[in-house]
Amino acid sequence: MQVSTAVATPSPRSTRARDKLMHTAERLYAEHGFANVSIRMISEAAGQRNKSAVQYHFSTRDELIQAILARHAAAIDEHRIPMVAALEASGEVSLRRWITCILTPHIEHHIELGTPSWYGRFLAQAVVEPSLREHATQASMRTPSFQRLEKLWPPRQDRDPDLSAQYRAMIRLLVVHMCAELEGDLASGLVAVADAEQSWRRLGEHLITAVCGLSTALLEISEP
Amino acid sequence: MQVSTAVATPSPRSTRARDKLMHTAERLYAEHGFANVSIRMISEAAGQRNKSAVQYHFSTRDELIQAILARHAAAIDEHRIPMVAALEASGEVSLRRWITCILTPHIEHHIELGTPSWYGRFLAQAVVEPSLREHATQASMRTPSFQRLEKLWPPRQDRDPDLSAQYRAMIRLLVVHMCAELEGDLASGLVAVADAEQSWRRLGEHLITAVCGLSTALLEISEP
Repeated sequence: MQVSTAVATPSPRSTRARDKLMHTAERLYAEHGFANVSIRMISEAAGQRNKSAVQYHFSTRDELIQAILARHAAAIDEHRIPMVAALEASGEVSLRRWITCILTPHIEHHIELGTPSWYGRFLAQAVVEPSLREHATQASMRTPSFQRLEKLWPPRQDRDPDLSAQYRAMIRLLVVHMCAELEGDLASGLVAVADAEQSWRRLGEHLITAVCGLSTALLEISEP
Repeated sequence: MQVSTAVATPSPRSTRARDKLMHTAERLYAEHGFANVSIRMISEAAGQRNKSAVQYHFSTRDELIQAILARHAAAIDEHRIPMVAALEASGEVSLRRWITCILTPHIEHHIELGTPSWYGRFLAQAVVEPSLREHATQASMRTPSFQRLEKLWPPRQDRDPDLSAQYRAMIRLLVVHMCAELEGDLASGLVAVADAEQSWRRLGEHLITAVCGLSTALLEISEP
């Protein structure tokens, strides 16, 4: 009885340990790179006496990383849901509004994380690592808000599936890597922490404008 | 005398060993990720009996990686030099021609590398790793052809330095990561090897079109 309860609901202590490991891993990976951080270093830096704490709570490094990705994807989803609901209700889906719904939730999530944050640089590494790439790319595309947004995609038929896949990849990597760059600039002091929120919003505006321009050119969409 | 000659000109055997280590490292990093490849694994996979062969030839992992980056940057530079010379001679620098000079040399280099290649996925990891990021980003921007191209940048005054830096980052990461994606698709068989050259040229065209659209929107440049 005791055992099955413990399995169904992790103890507060276990939840705290998991949280601490996830935060520590994200920070160490962002600052030093996936290649320079062992799971033992993460357990130690998280103050776990058990050097196998990562294995105990997450089994493998990849599962630890996937848990971090899932938590952020859920937070971004929460920002996007009301935006998509408003777009659905409006009945009028312009390219710019659709792109805003894709990009702005990432910006809002970064503002919410505060400074310094580590998620941006962590994610940028996850999406290029062979064993994580597929999972990291899918994490945010599988969220409910993203699925609903896909159904609203303005140019209804995609005449060229290869081009369409490349177009989506361009949007995805622009948001992932540009956010990582600004996060890095904030962490290194190249951008002042006092300007953080303003800088995130400016980046958001630039990304929306850039992706609108790119979309119009690439998909030969003309908008009023 | 013997010693100083050996230092000035590496023996053919030493050059072959260096080449083998660089090729092996690039392949292993591309296929398994920086985090999952040790320098000892590289020495072994390169058939070096000395397990410290990487340290002997390159001192550190980072210097090995920088040597690989430098070799590719030089090859891309060779493709770009005649294109920049033609652009300089023409006296008429349109945005599209300038962007073509930035992007096409990367595409030509990938076509020259053949299939499978590893450079694209290797570079994508290098530009997001904290200890390598700066060097990897600068490697191609420091080449002579890139410097000459910067002087031809069509909108002569950049009114907004932050926007200008973000704009350049967008171009850079689009070319780096989109090339890595196509290379990955070719390696996994998602794109047929027989279509490799055509796929690279199509990606090149899409990138030029996308970056032109992005430039026009972001910098409010209008072109005839």
